[in-house]
Amino acid sequence: MPKKAKRIKPRLLKGFRDIMPGDMLARRKLIETVREVYERYGFVPLDTPALEYLETLTGEYGIPSSKEIYTFADQDNTPVALRYDLTVPLARLVAQYPDLPKPFRRYQVAPVWRFDKPGPGRFREFLQFDIDTVGCARMMADAEIIATIVDTLLALGVQKFHIRLSNRKLLNCLVTYAGVAPERNHEVFRVLDKLDKAGLENVKLELGPGRVDQSGDPIPGLGLDNGPIGKIEEFLAITGETRKDIIARLTELFADTPAAEEAIRELDEIADLLTAAGIDEQRAKIDVSVARGLDYYTGPVFEAILDDLPQFGSVFGGGRYDGLVQRFLGQQIPAVGTSVGVDRLLAAMEKLGKLRTRKTTVDILVTTMDKNRMNEYLTLTRELREAGINTELYLGKPGQVGKQLQYADRQGIALAVIAGEDEFSQNQVSIKNLHEGRAKSAEADTRQDWLTARFGQKTIPRAEFIDFIKSVLFAG
Amino acid sequence: MPKKAKRIKPRLLKGFRDIMPGDMLARRKLIETVREVYERYGFVPLDTPALEYLETLTGEYGIPSSKEIYTFADQDNTPVALRYDLTVPLARLVAQYPDLPKPFRRYQVAPVWRFDKPGPGRFREFLQFDIDTVGCARMMADAEIIATIVDTLLALGVQKFHIRLSNRKLLNCLVTYAGVAPERNHEVFRVLDKLDKAGLENVKLELGPGRVDQSGDPIPGLGLDNGPIGKIEEFLAITGETRKDIIARLTELFADTPAAEEAIRELDEIADLLTAAGIDEQRAKIDVSVARGLDYYTGPVFEAILDDLPQFGSVFGGGRYDGLVQRFLGQQIPAVGTSVGVDRLLAAMEKLGKLRTRKTTVDILVTTMDKNRMNEYLTLTRELREAGINTELYLGKPGQVGKQLQYADRQGIALAVIAGEDEFSQNQVSIKNLHEGRAKSAEADTRQDWLTARFGQKTIPRAEFIDFIKSVLFAG
Repeated sequence: MPKKAKRIKPRLLKGFRDIMPGDMLARRKLIETVREVYERYGFVPLDTPALEYLETLTGEYGIPSSKEIYTFADQDNTPVALRYDLTVPLARLVAQYPDLPKPFRRYQVAPVWRFDKPGPGRFREFLQFDIDTVGCARMMADAEIIATIVDTLLALGVQKFHIRLSNRKLLNCLVTYAGVAPERNHEVFRVLDKLDKAGLENVKLELGPGRVDQSGDPIPGLGLDNGPIGKIEEFLAITGETRKDIIARLTELFADTPAAEEAIRELDEIADLLTAAGIDEQRAKIDVSVARGLDYYTGPVFEAILDDLPQFGSVFGGGRYDGLVQRFLGQQIPAVGTSVGVDRLLAAMEKLGKLRTRKTTVDILVTTMDKNRMNEYLTLTRELREAGINTELYLGKPGQVGKQLQYADRQGIALAVIAGEDEFSQNQVSIKNLHEGRAKSAEADTRQDWLTARFGQKTIPRAEFIDFIKSVLFAG
Repeated sequence: MPKKAKRIKPRLLKGFRDIMPGDMLARRKLIETVREVYERYGFVPLDTPALEYLETLTGEYGIPSSKEIYTFADQDNTPVALRYDLTVPLARLVAQYPDLPKPFRRYQVAPVWRFDKPGPGRFREFLQFDIDTVGCARMMADAEIIATIVDTLLALGVQKFHIRLSNRKLLNCLVTYAGVAPERNHEVFRVLDKLDKAGLENVKLELGPGRVDQSGDPIPGLGLDNGPIGKIEEFLAITGETRKDIIARLTELFADTPAAEEAIRELDEIADLLTAAGIDEQRAKIDVSVARGLDYYTGPVFEAILDDLPQFGSVFGGGRYDGLVQRFLGQQIPAVGTSVGVDRLLAAMEKLGKLRTRKTTVDILVTTMDKNRMNEYLTLTRELREAGINTELYLGKPGQVGKQLQYADRQGIALAVIAGEDEFSQNQVSIKNLHEGRAKSAEADTRQDWLTARFGQKTIPRAEFIDFIKSVLFAG
């Protein structure tokens, strides 16, 4: 390297992060579990580019404004951008390939980027894992997406959660019912979307005269009168024991609003399908206050809430968006899907204690006691790998075995192979069990738990060593 | 959707592509096979951001100039860029976290971006899959990387390939030996790197007076005299039956070049280690003409060549780069690694006929004959999924079963569940085997081959249907 070279400071961009091996292994495990469920439901993988034309990504629908999107100029100066979600690129793809067999069900796990102001826990790059069914207007598609969410959370070992389900069409009717001009519906939805975080009283103030937030900043209100606000409150108060109870109350409330018929019929259909899918009343509830922020939803909307982490917000969110492909095609293609933030979900699993992490995938470390025997250590390593055993050959300085065992222990590697002059001269190998006598820890997997109770160190004939290791690793 | 909205043309950026489900499934299978081998060798996963500061990515070393990198301005106008490889971000990370336990072995599979002129088969976004060992100066690390490449290709079902191995230090000595000024070494390496594609005579012209390429464009030469060119030719002509033969010839040739001693000793050490790792003479050869384009290599360099696709170029390339972390840290940290382009490797596997692809991961389609029975179809589907069977519920228009079976066939789904009035009234279910009587195809997997020979359609009691499907799918 030239001596004159300027030293460059190693640093990350603000809002970005490196994912270290332990976290990556946890992320991979979660992704594989989710993927398995998605595939059991018949969703197939798809990939689209990180970059799209800016005009593809921006537009109406309350899609993030170009201020929130990473944008730059291509070689010919066309404005291009890093995708901020996986749904808009899917709509582009569906419009671009009219021969795609439909209904088309795909999953995609990929990073998205936001040009937000970075802050603690707010990242500009994060991994999303989406499923969508395109080309099916029937409520069966919506019910299947909800069933997939339920099975995914169960597969992740979460029992205490529920789905909140509503219909954007119902909210549209609410606006009419309350006597608010229809063109103000998205303004109203955005206020209703704050219900969980801000509470009913603050939402009423924001629908009306406005309020002052905790830091003293004014939040302007929509200026609605008490009449409309009262009707909205009456709507939000609708509850019931069962999905059918709530549907009955909605039918009653909207008796004079014929436009509500379709919304209620759709909810009723989904309610029956959920029952056929084995999803009980506690697991999926109709909750008319669910708004979901995005403007592009046109029908059912839903989200998953973790009962033990009520403050965490929803972990899955989704709904039907029958108009999104039309932006490109002129023609409507119905679609419904759900999205989950992988790292947010991981954080939730961690809070729930559902995450078992390791720093390595290796089961055994071959230590290197004698620097003149490197070829022999490599041969031992090769034999272990040929037997299908994930094996690390110690690549630090040969010699001090104690230091090497410390390294194995810190990495969570259970077994170590030790061979020095004694072993080589007698054609033997020593195996050390680093988990011996150790208390069961939350992180240990069952095989390691099993090891805990067994041998400490054992010297065995060279010829039997692979069989011994296999019996230890695969018999537990 | 507002009627006034402008219709947006759905299109991809030039040089970018969508990866459709069939190709994604093939890609996933390849990635999982490669990952399994990497993990068997003890490499652990890592992720770094897509975006880095431009100054992190550019610099000396013949790293792509900023013209070849996707660059743009962050909110504070700092120039940032999309990573163009995974090695430079790793060097940044190693410098940034001095406490990282070393030797650090990581794998990373992630997209990289180039601002190249797009062309047929040349993409601006592609997936790379790298392994690197950081913090080990011993040749054991290099030998392990080579062994990993060998095992990866074997795991992919490729038998006919070989590794070409050389040492950048040898080429440095060659420059001295030939009497060329040392500061011209990278110019010479870049010409030598063309040997496979351009041939010896053209390389000699480019080292000397220059030449005219096929399209009549002049390629300027380095202007070396016949003396140096003759010595370079003599060097390039070195061959031998075994690795040790070539080492003996090199020792002879460089008898008066003491600087070559280290290069030859390193090759000799790796030769022994490869033998200990069970890699024979045909599998890994010393080939002194291997240059590898990148300027940052400092020691052993190597690449994998598919014997049946000699024109394809190398599929894995790598080497030792002991100076790269120094750019950030001021202090040298040794490192060695290899990189493979996932989509290039996929293309090679396809050419070799090693790729078995399906469009779906689903084993069975539940057809919907009667639109009033959707809840029952959903219940059948649920039972199959609960039994761990990947199942698609037909979401197109209910009714015409023939059309639905065609869809299943086109998707490569082997089995279909059929239930109409007859079946429901007698509490039965019909199962159709779409592979019956079909000739074995290259794409069929063994389970489907097995199905081919069996039943066509079978009607069975509702209560026995899950067991029957399981016996069909899991017994083959």
